[in-house]
Amino acid sequence: MRQLYDLAGAEADRRFSPYCWRARMALAHKELEVETIAWRYDDKPVIARTGEGKVPVLVDGGRWVHDSWAIANYLEDAYPERPSLFGGPVGRALSRFYANWADATLNPGLFPMLALDIWKHCAPQDQAYFRRSRETRLGRTLEAAAADREARLPAFRASLAPLRLTVAAQPFLGGTAPLYADYAVFGAFQWARAISEFVLLAEDDPIRTWRDRMLALHGGLASRAKAYPV
Amino acid sequence: MRQLYDLAGAEADRRFSPYCWRARMALAHKELEVETIAWRYDDKPVIARTGEGKVPVLVDGGRWVHDSWAIANYLEDAYPERPSLFGGPVGRALSRFYANWADATLNPGLFPMLALDIWKHCAPQDQAYFRRSRETRLGRTLEAAAADREARLPAFRASLAPLRLTVAAQPFLGGTAPLYADYAVFGAFQWARAISEFVLLAEDDPIRTWRDRMLALHGGLASRAKAYPV
Repeated sequence: MRQLYDLAGAEADRRFSPYCWRARMALAHKELEVETIAWRYDDKPVIARTGEGKVPVLVDGGRWVHDSWAIANYLEDAYPERPSLFGGPVGRALSRFYANWADATLNPGLFPMLALDIWKHCAPQDQAYFRRSRETRLGRTLEAAAADREARLPAFRASLAPLRLTVAAQPFLGGTAPLYADYAVFGAFQWARAISEFVLLAEDDPIRTWRDRMLALHGGLASRAKAYPV
Repeated sequence: MRQLYDLAGAEADRRFSPYCWRARMALAHKELEVETIAWRYDDKPVIARTGEGKVPVLVDGGRWVHDSWAIANYLEDAYPERPSLFGGPVGRALSRFYANWADATLNPGLFPMLALDIWKHCAPQDQAYFRRSRETRLGRTLEAAAADREARLPAFRASLAPLRLTVAAQPFLGGTAPLYADYAVFGAFQWARAISEFVLLAEDDPIRTWRDRMLALHGGLASRAKAYPV
């Protein structure tokens, strides 16, 4: 059985990495079964052979693949007869920007608002590492980052305008059906709801309708996962 | 001959609308000849039948099409035998987000830095209208918006990260060849260079290399246009 090392919290079934969620949704899209292995920041030795120390890591027939974009490309190439994640070479090229938008705009915009909640859900052995490394990255304490998140929310919501305009005009980023572009972006929202009760989206935001569609996909994979009802 | 109403400055050959540049590049991509008609804000009556008062407006065989996204879709559907702007239905769906990213993030980020330079290049009959309407939008004078553009530049450059990461990894947003996604984004950069000497991109920014590729396309269409050597 193929395996995916998947970031987990103190509760083994609380899975909260946006990048791991991309991989899980991509595997489900490909209709490929996978055993997810709860992984903590403290477990770097078990994935040492990737040379990275980060998840997701997919192990498929003895092959180790790490990095969510590499995993998506691997799955597309290794299982061409399965439903396509990209819809062809053009779609593959056009999908890269979505992953980069999520990596460089969406996830960094979310991170300060979520960091303290992540820490609260981390396994005990991960908390000191997480606090130290993330406070260095943020340049302030996790508590300080959380304290002004209400004030940051309008700018964060404004930054979602390209997504909002798109999913107001079509059901999925991929059009009438979801593609990897959808998963690349959805990972951020699943990350948030997995560890935080903070309400990111206004009640009438079209992004909420799209997110609900994403939650329902693949037998409700993301919907059934441990998360808050935000 | 088909015609495109194309925003022009005091000099009839200074064409500076990001949305018109999308349409011009799309027409060139489709290998379709077009007569561009210099249009000023004061010329709203000549395009009154669109009900919008905005360019680009394409007139093709008696059919009037307005809005850059609608024009791209019209060209793709009306000329299916010509080089594709989207690379198929999936590519079309995936292209919408690029136009929305440019509309909602890139162009608004640029506008305050460019507004005074646009005003300087406007036809005399347009200057009062442009100043009044844009100062209302900006909530301050054109001069005030220009005065702090150096200070805004680092945040603007940071906002380009998704584009930068993508074109550092592949020649075009569309992959190995340009697609409408490239034109949707490139329009912003052509807008800037058409009316401003302000240097937006660092010398070593990979976006500059991509922009040079875009400038060279279709016989150097954008490169040959009246602009500043920034």
